[in-house]
Amino acid sequence: MTLTARKIADLVHGVLEGSGDVEIHSFAKIEEAGSGTITFLANPKYTHHIYTTGADAVLVRNDFIPERPVKATLIRVEDPYVTLSELMTMVAKASQAHPEGLESPVSIAEGVLMPEGAYVGAFTYIAKDVKLGKGVKIYPQCYVGEGSVIGEGTIMYPGVKIYRGSRIGRRCILHSGVVVGSDGFGFAPTPSGEYEKIPQIGHVEIGDDVEIGSNTVVDRATMGATKIGDGVKLDNLIQVAHNVSIGNNTVIAAQTGIAGSTQIGSMCMIGGQVGFAGHLTIGDRSVIGAQSGIPNNVASGSRLMGYPAVPAGEFARNNVYIKKLASLYRRVDKLEDKD
Amino acid sequence: MTLTARKIADLVHGVLEGSGDVEIHSFAKIEEAGSGTITFLANPKYTHHIYTTGADAVLVRNDFIPERPVKATLIRVEDPYVTLSELMTMVAKASQAHPEGLESPVSIAEGVLMPEGAYVGAFTYIAKDVKLGKGVKIYPQCYVGEGSVIGEGTIMYPGVKIYRGSRIGRRCILHSGVVVGSDGFGFAPTPSGEYEKIPQIGHVEIGDDVEIGSNTVVDRATMGATKIGDGVKLDNLIQVAHNVSIGNNTVIAAQTGIAGSTQIGSMCMIGGQVGFAGHLTIGDRSVIGAQSGIPNNVASGSRLMGYPAVPAGEFARNNVYIKKLASLYRRVDKLEDKD
Amino acid sequence: MTLTARKIADLVHGVLEGSGDVEIHSFAKIEEAGSGTITFLANPKYTHHIYTTGADAVLVRNDFIPERPVKATLIRVEDPYVTLSELMTMVAKASQAHPEGLESPVSIAEGVLMPEGAYVGAFTYIAKDVKLGKGVKIYPQCYVGEGSVIGEGTIMYPGVKIYRGSRIGRRCILHSGVVVGSDGFGFAPTPSGEYEKIPQIGHVEIGDDVEIGSNTVVDRATMGATKIGDGVKLDNLIQVAHNVSIGNNTVIAAQTGIAGSTQIGSMCMIGGQVGFAGHLTIGDRSVIGAQSGIPNNVASGSRLMGYPAVPAGEFARNNVYIKKLASLYRRVDKLEDKD
Repeated sequence: MTLTARKIADLVHGVLEGSGDVEIHSFAKIEEAGSGTITFLANPKYTHHIYTTGADAVLVRNDFIPERPVKATLIRVEDPYVTLSELMTMVAKASQAHPEGLESPVSIAEGVLMPEGAYVGAFTYIAKDVKLGKGVKIYPQCYVGEGSVIGEGTIMYPGVKIYRGSRIGRRCILHSGVVVGSDGFGFAPTPSGEYEKIPQIGHVEIGDDVEIGSNTVVDRATMGATKIGDGVKLDNLIQVAHNVSIGNNTVIAAQTGIAGSTQIGSMCMIGGQVGFAGHLTIGDRSVIGAQSGIPNNVASGSRLMGYPAVPAGEFARNNVYIKKLASLYRRVDKLEDKD
Repeated sequence: MTLTARKIADLVHGVLEGSGDVEIHSFAKIEEAGSGTITFLANPKYTHHIYTTGADAVLVRNDFIPERPVKATLIRVEDPYVTLSELMTMVAKASQAHPEGLESPVSIAEGVLMPEGAYVGAFTYIAKDVKLGKGVKIYPQCYVGEGSVIGEGTIMYPGVKIYRGSRIGRRCILHSGVVVGSDGFGFAPTPSGEYEKIPQIGHVEIGDDVEIGSNTVVDRATMGATKIGDGVKLDNLIQVAHNVSIGNNTVIAAQTGIAGSTQIGSMCMIGGQVGFAGHLTIGDRSVIGAQSGIPNNVASGSRLMGYPAVPAGEFARNNVYIKKLASLYRRVDKLEDKD
Repeated sequence: MTLTARKIADLVHGVLEGSGDVEIHSFAKIEEAGSGTITFLANPKYTHHIYTTGADAVLVRNDFIPERPVKATLIRVEDPYVTLSELMTMVAKASQAHPEGLESPVSIAEGVLMPEGAYVGAFTYIAKDVKLGKGVKIYPQCYVGEGSVIGEGTIMYPGVKIYRGSRIGRRCILHSGVVVGSDGFGFAPTPSGEYEKIPQIGHVEIGDDVEIGSNTVVDRATMGATKIGDGVKLDNLIQVAHNVSIGNNTVIAAQTGIAGSTQIGSMCMIGGQVGFAGHLTIGDRSVIGAQSGIPNNVASGSRLMGYPAVPAGEFARNNVYIKKLASLYRRVDKLEDKD
C-alpha cells in the first residue's frame, strides 16, 4: 500500500488538515508509529501521544481540538476507530492475493472439475470425486481426500490436509497445518490388555463462514458426522474429537480440547486451553474461562471458570478463601488453645 | 457401501423380518437415522425410537418383541451392538483404500527398494538408506529422513514428517501432521544469559501396532532413544519429549505433554491435557484424569487427578471442601464472636 | 560415527587406559550402555555401574581410582561431563547433513536468488520477492510466502509454512510443522450474533538464533508485528498469538499458549502448558511453573505457579493447607460441639 493522506481522506470521506502529500505505507499504534504510517486517536487517554507520534497522518474525531501544534496531518472523521478498521479492510482487500489457475506440478484426479476463479497451488493433491466450489483458493501442499466437497470461496492455506469424505462449507478459511477428518480416537480393550481399533467410518461436516486456525485438528466421526456449525471460529492448535458438534457462531480460543461426542451450543465464547470431557451438552451462549476443565453438562448462558469449573464469581471467591487459609488455620489454633 | 438388508442379514447370520430389498448406504444412531441407513437397538432405554426411526433397517436382539408396528426392516441377532461393530469393520475394510505403487512426482533416493504392496503418494520424499516394509502405505506429502526404517503394513497419512534415523514398527498408523524425530528441547545456559544448543544425536523407536494422532510430536533423544512401546495409542496434538519412554498398550488422550526423560509404564490410561514433569517414573496401569499435573513419581495402579495430582477420591473431596469454605469462614467468625 | 577409543582420547586430549582399538559407534548412559558405545562417569552416585557397564569406553575424571577391575577402556579427562558434551558436538557436527543446491521439483518464483551454500529441498515452494540468506537450508515441502526474508544460516525442516511478509533472522532453526504468520484470531461481533473478520495486516519478526519446535504456531499481528527476540527457544506445539512480543533469550516449554498482545520479557523461563491471558506485561527473568494460568501482569524476577498463578512458595503451602482441610473441618465441628 502506498497512498497519500489526501487519497485516504477521500476514501474515508474525512476532512484533511495539514499536508495532503505525505505518503502512507502502513498502519501503526500511535505510540509506536514511525515515518510513513497512519494511526488513529480514539481513546482520550492516548491524546498526549499525538504531539510526539512519528506517524505522518492521524485519524481524529471531528471535534478534536489540539492543545499544542501537531506535526502529523490530521484526517477528521466521525469515529476514528471504525474508520481505521474500514480503511484496514480496504487495504487488506486490495493487497490480498487473488491467485487463480493451476500451478505445476499438482496432482488432480481425472474428472475433478476446476471451477471458475479457482486456484490450486503447486504440490497440492486432489483425489478422485472431489467437488470444488467457485473461486476456491487451495494453496500449495494441500491434500483433499476422495469425495470431499469444498464450498464456494473457501481458502485453504499451505499444508491443509482434508481426509476423504469431508464436507467444507462456503467462504471458510483453513490455516496451515489444519487436519480435517483424521480417525477418531476409538479403541476397544481386549481381554489380553491390548486395544483393537474401532473403525471410524463417519465423516466431518463444516458449515459456511468457518475459520479454523493453524494446526487445529477435527477428527471424523465413528459413525455419522463431526459437525461444525456456520460462522464458528476456531483458533490454533485446537482438538475437536469424533462426533463432537459445535453450534453456529461459537468462538473457541487456542489449544482447547473437546472430547468425543460433546455437543457445544451456539454463540458460546470459550477461552484458551479449556478441556471438555466427552458426551456433554454445553448450552448456548455459555462463556467458559481459559484453562477451565468441564466435567459436566453446562446450562445455557452459564459463565464458568476453574478446574473443575464453577460459576466464575465462585471461582474468584474460592481463590480468595484459599489465599487466606494460612490465617484461618491460625485462627482455629487460637480457638483450640483458648478452649 | 450399498447393500440390501437381505445381504446384510446373510453377512451377519441374522434373521430378516420385513423387506429384504431396502438398500442400505450407511450407519446411523437410531435417533438420528435417515433413509438408506441401518441402525441398532441394544439399550432398552432407546426402544421407543424404533417406532419413529428413519432408518430402513435395525439390528435387534433375537428376543425383541415390538409393542407397535415397526416400519423398518428388522434383522434379529444375538448381540446387536457387537454385530454392528463387526458389520462396521467389514464395511470399513471393504471401503478402505488399497492404494499401491508409486505416484508421480515423488522423490525417492537411489537404492531405496519399493517392497511388495507398497504405496508412495505424490510429493512424498524418501531420503537415502530408508528401509520400507512390505505393504507400507505412505500418502502424499510425507517425508522420511535418511536411514529411517518403516515396518511392514504401516500407514502414514498425508503430511507425516519422519526425521532421519527413526525406527517405526509394523502395522502402525501415523496421522497427518505427525512429526517423529525432531530435536529434543535441550539448551545449556551460558554465563552471558544466552543458550547453547545441546546436540540431539539420539533417535526415536516406535513399536508395533502403534497409532499416533494428527499433529502429535515425538522428539528424538539427546542420546539413545525416545521409545514408544507396542500397542501404544496416542491421540492428537500430544507432546512426547526427548528420552521419554512409554510402555506397551498405554493410551493417552489429546494434548497431553510428557517432559524429557519421563518413563511411563505399560497399560496406563492417561486423560487429555495432562502434563508430566521430566525425569519421572509412572507405574504400570496408572490412570490419570484429564488436565492433571504430575510433578512426582507415580506408583503402579494409581488413580490420580488434579493440579498437582492427588488420588482421584481426594481430588473430589477437596473440591467439596473448597466449595464449603465460605461457610467454614462464617463458622469460625461465629466461634470467635462467642469466644 | 565410528572411532577407536584411541582416536577419541586424542580428540579430547585424554589419557587412554586399556585397549585403544575398541570401536565406538555411539553414546549411551552408563547403566544402559551396550557394546560399541562410549559413556561417562561424572556423578559418584553412579560409580558402581562402571564395573558392570556394557560400554566399551568410559570417560572418567583424572583422579578416578577404580576399586575393582574395569573391563571398559578408560579415557581420563578433567571433566567427563563437559568432555562428553564436546565430543557429542564434534560428532553431531561431523554427522550433520550439509545438503546444498536445488532439488527437483521445486517451485521458486522468478527473481528469487539462490545464495551461496543454500539448499532447497524437493516440493518446496518459494513465492515472489522472497530473500534468502547465505547458507539457508530449506528442507522439502516447505512454503515461504511472498516477500518473506530468511536470514543467513537458518534451517527450516520439512513442512515449515511461512506466510507472506515474515522476517526470520539468522541461524534460526524451525522444526517440521511450524507455522509462522497465519492470521491472528480477531473477530468483531455483529449485532446479529455473527462475527466479522478483522483484517490481520501485520506480520511476524523473528530475531537471530531462535529455535522453534515442531507444530508451534506464531500468528501475524493485526497491525504492526508479532515479535520474537534474539536467542528465544520455543518448544513444540506452542501458541503465540497476534501482536505478542517475546524478549531475548526467553525459553518456553511445550504446549504453552500466549494470548494476543501480551509482552513477555527477556531471559524468562516458562514451563509447559502455561496459559497467558492477553494484553499482559511479564517482566524480565520471570520463572513460571508448568500449567500455570497467568491472568495479570507479572513483575520482573517473579517465580509463579498455579491456576491462577501465585508465588511458587505460596502455591506449595496452599496445597498443603488444602490437603488438611478434612481435618480442619473436623476441628471446627469439635469446637462447635464444645461450644
